Amino acid sequence: MTGTSLDGIDVAICDISNSEGRPKCELLAFDMLDYPAGFADYVRSVICTPNWEDISFLHFALPKLYAEAIRKVADENKIELSKIELIGMHGQTIWHSPVPKTRYGVTTGSTMQLGDGSVLAKLLGIPVVSDFRSGDVALGGQGAPLVPRFDDDFFSDDLHDVVCLNIGGMANITYIPAGKFRDKKTDTGNCRAAVIAFDTGPGNILINTAIKKYFGKEYDEDGAIATSAFVNNNLLNALMQDTYVNAAPPKSTGREYFNEVFLTEKLNMAGGLEVLNPCDIIATLTRFTAESIAFNIRKFAKVPGVLYVSGGGARNKTILQMLHELLPEAEIKLPDELGIPSDAKEAIAFAYLAWLTKNHISGNLPSVTGASADTVLGSISE
Amino acid sequence: MTGTSLDGIDVAICDISNSEGRPKCELLAFDMLDYPAGFADYVRSVICTPNWEDISFLHFALPKLYAEAIRKVADENKIELSKIELIGMHGQTIWHSPVPKTRYGVTTGSTMQLGDGSVLAKLLGIPVVSDFRSGDVALGGQGAPLVPRFDDDFFSDDLHDVVCLNIGGMANITYIPAGKFRDKKTDTGNCRAAVIAFDTGPGNILINTAIKKYFGKEYDEDGAIATSAFVNNNLLNALMQDTYVNAAPPKSTGREYFNEVFLTEKLNMAGGLEVLNPCDIIATLTRFTAESIAFNIRKFAKVPGVLYVSGGGARNKTILQMLHELLPEAEIKLPDELGIPSDAKEAIAFAYLAWLTKNHISGNLPSVTGASADTVLGSISE
Repeated sequence: MTGTSLDGIDVAICDISNSEGRPKCELLAFDMLDYPAGFADYVRSVICTPNWEDISFLHFALPKLYAEAIRKVADENKIELSKIELIGMHGQTIWHSPVPKTRYGVTTGSTMQLGDGSVLAKLLGIPVVSDFRSGDVALGGQGAPLVPRFDDDFFSDDLHDVVCLNIGGMANITYIPAGKFRDKKTDTGNCRAAVIAFDTGPGNILINTAIKKYFGKEYDEDGAIATSAFVNNNLLNALMQDTYVNAAPPKSTGREYFNEVFLTEKLNMAGGLEVLNPCDIIATLTRFTAESIAFNIRKFAKVPGVLYVSGGGARNKTILQMLHELLPEAEIKLPDELGIPSDAKEAIAFAYLAWLTKNHISGNLPSVTGASADTVLGSISE
Repeated sequence: MTGTSLDGIDVAICDISNSEGRPKCELLAFDMLDYPAGFADYVRSVICTPNWEDISFLHFALPKLYAEAIRKVADENKIELSKIELIGMHGQTIWHSPVPKTRYGVTTGSTMQLGDGSVLAKLLGIPVVSDFRSGDVALGGQGAPLVPRFDDDFFSDDLHDVVCLNIGGMANITYIPAGKFRDKKTDTGNCRAAVIAFDTGPGNILINTAIKKYFGKEYDEDGAIATSAFVNNNLLNALMQDTYVNAAPPKSTGREYFNEVFLTEKLNMAGGLEVLNPCDIIATLTRFTAESIAFNIRKFAKVPGVLYVSGGGARNKTILQMLHELLPEAEIKLPDELGIPSDAKEAIAFAYLAWLTKNHISGNLPSVTGASADTVLGSISE
């Protein structure tokens, strides 16, 4: 797995199997590896000003780096490469534009990941599934999110509704109705149709932007600053009136919306640093993150029996405490309890999606992506 | 099949099967379809000045056009789409740079085709094999030529050496030793190791360039102008001393070398239009095309028992007559005799390569591409 933030390569080695009709996943090894010095900036420069020589080079260089990363994690964990049966390779997303546009009489949405699956397959001698998003976009879907299928298969519960909440830069949820309800097929005959997933709004992005600006640190460790200060209600109210937070799903967002410009505007609306002190700003942004999540769960999904929290935000104790206050009906857990470490969850999810493809099982959830049908995702390179 | 010349989409619908250990191919339908008005120029502009929005759009728009083309050819020939089991999609080559280069500590060659296989698969509901060249490049090969594998399987002969000659813009040959010889395994244990394939030099490019310049036509129909005039030996000698023609294989060439600049230079060396008349120039260029082909076959391969000629040049009777004079030992045939129309050959070859991939059979010839091993080519999208 490599994310759009270009912060490195995540490798999860898993043993996936079917156990009494339910997929089972044992994580054998996980690591996050760095790109070579300068490489991430090189990729950014090609994204910024594309030229074919570098595009084509990266299409091969990325799987070459993935191959080295997989070798390293396998070696360090004493896993023989020959025992690895299949690789799921997400590739580097360069462009994602699922909304159709028309040129010269051709109308289509599109998405594009760099990284050639066949190259990785040949370098390691292991079959590779790649290009997970295109098939869903070709069927009119958003090509995202894809992790909800994994959430549905691994976190659903017979007795309780479940929400999987991931707090990364943005926050997103997957709402999974309890099994009993899901057994009743919907109009479309698809019992997964009741799964809901969308971005609720900011995850750590606003907190981290302010922490960097006022404290010169990367993040608020354990949420310590937030818990020591006071929420400013003027600022919180201004934030909670945000259009995105209040919009009904389907919706998705990113750094092009929730960023420093957004933050500065809202701070100015609340009186700026003449009224607010930096610690209270952090406390308020933390509260806004938790409150926008809770509001979206309550309004657009349903408060679940169990809430699994993953992503960097799962380490912010203040956020967890606030979620507990705001959603008292929900038991808050970490996915680690089910053997899925929070950091490794996305990489494991794509290993699982690859396993589905290899077994000719569909991997998208049309209720979530908007595709016209569920479909087997990706391409297999032998 | 779509070539680098962007002259349209070739669709071949074939019935491929195994018959007594030898693959068999029956061509059910073939057509060459145009791109929508302006589309080829749009692709050229994106190749010239790439930007991600257009790159990503083309990655989806091309398979969308391929899907329409396949539907059309199937409909017009009353072939039900549901009867088509597999599609081989070459995609649009945008960059081909198999020679390794190093950036930020990563060394690799590369090749890139636009056109997402998963998109075509979803649009038609038929599995697609795409990305044929990457696996060979990943194994250190040139990723080209790939048609020799098809030539070897469909044109080889137990008793005679065979050469498949394709005269397109450039001319290329595949030399296939007789079956008896090929049964003796070579040192590498690979009985295909004796197959040789390379570009001999110009095909129709120089003739057509001069025809356009002096006669305002697209090509010398039937070779009529050439046969009515005289070969100028000064010009022919100057041409036959060309470095590329005399270089030993492996070698490949293109329009970046054999073009109008090349032609003007050689014409000037031979005295220009003060000495040469346009008809004699055509006759001499036609002779050069035939002689450079014959010279390369004799020097770097072996004069075969049978020479199959395909491509536009196969319709130039003067070239065929000259080849007959220059290679009297060879019986000259058209692939049409084996049920493979000359125009359709490349499209059929990629249908066959897709069939090999689907059956987990390697498709490259390391003796031809230079790859470290024979390997299953491409990716399959379900």
